[in-house]
Amino acid sequence: MPKRVDHEERRRRVAEALWRIASTRGLESASLRDVAAEAGMSLGQLQHYFTGKDELLVFALGHINELATQRVRERILALHTGPGEPPPRDVLRETAKVMLPLDDESRSGILVQVAYFARAVVDERMLAHAQEGLPLLLDFFSGQIRRAVERGEVAAHRDPRTEAMLLMALTDGLANHALMGGWSAEEALRLIDVHLERLFTV
Amino acid sequence: MPKRVDHEERRRRVAEALWRIASTRGLESASLRDVAAEAGMSLGQLQHYFTGKDELLVFALGHINELATQRVRERILALHTGPGEPPPRDVLRETAKVMLPLDDESRSGILVQVAYFARAVVDERMLAHAQEGLPLLLDFFSGQIRRAVERGEVAAHRDPRTEAMLLMALTDGLANHALMGGWSAEEALRLIDVHLERLFTV
Repeated sequence: MPKRVDHEERRRRVAEALWRIASTRGLESASLRDVAAEAGMSLGQLQHYFTGKDELLVFALGHINELATQRVRERILALHTGPGEPPPRDVLRETAKVMLPLDDESRSGILVQVAYFARAVVDERMLAHAQEGLPLLLDFFSGQIRRAVERGEVAAHRDPRTEAMLLMALTDGLANHALMGGWSAEEALRLIDVHLERLFTV
Repeated sequence: MPKRVDHEERRRRVAEALWRIASTRGLESASLRDVAAEAGMSLGQLQHYFTGKDELLVFALGHINELATQRVRERILALHTGPGEPPPRDVLRETAKVMLPLDDESRSGILVQVAYFARAVVDERMLAHAQEGLPLLLDFFSGQIRRAVERGEVAAHRDPRTEAMLLMALTDGLANHALMGGWSAEEALRLIDVHLERLFTV
């Protein structure tokens, strides 16, 4: 199905053009015409793939979440070369690292998410889409902490869901302060390590 | 100086009109004309007080930070009726509460800050202003934790600055998730209590 592939490839190209604009100027200032120009196509061509800005925003958000998930998977595979499951602590740390602006790729991704976040809190429709990935991430963190308890690496009295919420919120907050220049992304990672060290104490 | 007072009062009225727009529709969509209409004045009258949108944004940000600081002070005074200094743990908890969307006033304030945050990360000039309050809050948190160490309420090996950064980032992250509907503001406060309980363990 070469036609279909081309169609998806073009939709992704438009999404990436939107992210470039979102991460340099913010989402609000991006008109469909600007996005089309950034993607190197005409407004008419873009409208063949997306009928309006909302549809484009939703697609681009889904796509960026997929890419982040894929990046986490790749990193976990890269750090885990031995047999058996990768250690939960390493998995949590690698996932948190993707959520910090430690490199240009992560930084752009987080800037796009900030732009979505600012829109979602004042836009019901966008909120519903922006919320989609959060329970999945929370379940993923909870699951890893539950495994760590089973492996005897986290104290049995710790509630995996509470710990997952604490780690997720802390990581997001640290990432935001790093973006604002309150401290560096490396300092944010140091603080996550302080938190993980306390969590992984039995 | 009745003239001067009137001038300041009008500038604040404009700032509050901007916040109402920012917390319902976002900052980007607010034109000076919209803000003037919301404040019940003409565009010409508004331009007597603010020559452009940037000047208005900076004034409004300074004003909202002042109000938040004042709210924290009032709450600390309200909870502390006895002699001597108020207990650091109570001070930290009350400050964190102001940073959570527990009531309409806090919620609006946080929505405005989110709107500023989204703009600051893509706008150098706004970033400089948005950063101003952060070192002060960090110093305030560090100072309270240092006092708690001196009072024997926090273990001596804890670094006050590291703990202040962790608490500040956690509170911001929890507030953002509460805004997004990931969990309630009350649940966010419960998680702050879990964190404080661990911090205040010697």
